[in-house]
Amino acid sequence: MTTASPIEFWFDFSSGYAYLAAQEIDALGARVDRPILWRPYMLGTAFKVTGMRGLSSTPVKGDYARYDWARAARRMGVPFAPPVEHPKVALPATRAFYWIESAHPGQEQRFAREVFRRYYSGKLDTSDPDAVAALAGGLGLDAAQLRAGLEAAAIKDQVRTTSESAVQRGIFGSPFFVVEGEPFWGWDRLPMLEEWIRTGGW
Amino acid sequence: MTTASPIEFWFDFSSGYAYLAAQEIDALGARVDRPILWRPYMLGTAFKVTGMRGLSSTPVKGDYARYDWARAARRMGVPFAPPVEHPKVALPATRAFYWIESAHPGQEQRFAREVFRRYYSGKLDTSDPDAVAALAGGLGLDAAQLRAGLEAAAIKDQVRTTSESAVQRGIFGSPFFVVEGEPFWGWDRLPMLEEWIRTGGW
Repeated sequence: MTTASPIEFWFDFSSGYAYLAAQEIDALGARVDRPILWRPYMLGTAFKVTGMRGLSSTPVKGDYARYDWARAARRMGVPFAPPVEHPKVALPATRAFYWIESAHPGQEQRFAREVFRRYYSGKLDTSDPDAVAALAGGLGLDAAQLRAGLEAAAIKDQVRTTSESAVQRGIFGSPFFVVEGEPFWGWDRLPMLEEWIRTGGW
Repeated sequence: MTTASPIEFWFDFSSGYAYLAAQEIDALGARVDRPILWRPYMLGTAFKVTGMRGLSSTPVKGDYARYDWARAARRMGVPFAPPVEHPKVALPATRAFYWIESAHPGQEQRFAREVFRRYYSGKLDTSDPDAVAALAGGLGLDAAQLRAGLEAAAIKDQVRTTSESAVQRGIFGSPFFVVEGEPFWGWDRLPMLEEWIRTGGW
């Protein structure tokens, strides 16, 4: 078991670039012998502070982003087919992640990877608590228990405060990585993040 | 002399990421045997369409961008010290580029590189026509002739229409690259651009 500081992997399930990063982050962590701390959060919380808006709703840039996501996914050999209503507000999926992390620690990354895989195959509505619970059930977790957990004030509070404190730390995008306090925004910063860890920074 | 299609390099002189790209684009072009077509434009023209605003004026994200520019420049071994009023509106420098391209073809890239070098060393106000003309004079061009050229309606029109038609083609950021119609936005897309050219795309 490694004792090195983790790479924090902050993301919103509805972020195309987070999906791309999710394909690569585990292998990167293995190469540099660092655990990955998966931290889904609600990017909308950051948008309130930065005044930014989602790529998909930005004229011209949104068209490019959709093209760029598909191009990168094609290169990786993974599908890129989110629901036509993309981006969904993935609050139930995010709450489910933290419920699983608390109730079944060690299962939450597997759940997150499956959320990404199914959402970007057009097979999961991340904004539907029942669909999210069913997916967890398919992974061997107790779907009814999780479904009830999604309504618990403690989980709702956790997701809200997690998102708010991320933004207070300067985390404003998705994906966004932090390692030993060093911030890296964007899927395309993964090579720099890896070099930073290997060299000890510059 | 190569006959391959050029790599279009669209940028605003006041874009930190364009400065970073300017350090690397010529070597990339040489590796893949492609000429680089330097195309400064006014990013503000794109902002009007996309509703985006400059990184420097975006809360939280602006702080990160300043940190990220300096970190990347440090890695490259180049200075990153733009004027404290950064970003300047580099309209005179952009007009000068096209005046030189027209009056002294072949000199415009050298001029652009010098604009980047001096602006990001805090030694040039790209929004000051006299300073821009003096810089051109230092490169052996006729400063007085260029200074007069900056007031010509033809040059003003050229910069405006160049910027507008770029945006109409879907160019909305800086740096932004196009090769054989394929768009790549951002300094961090240079490795993908190079792979695209080498492989013929995917």
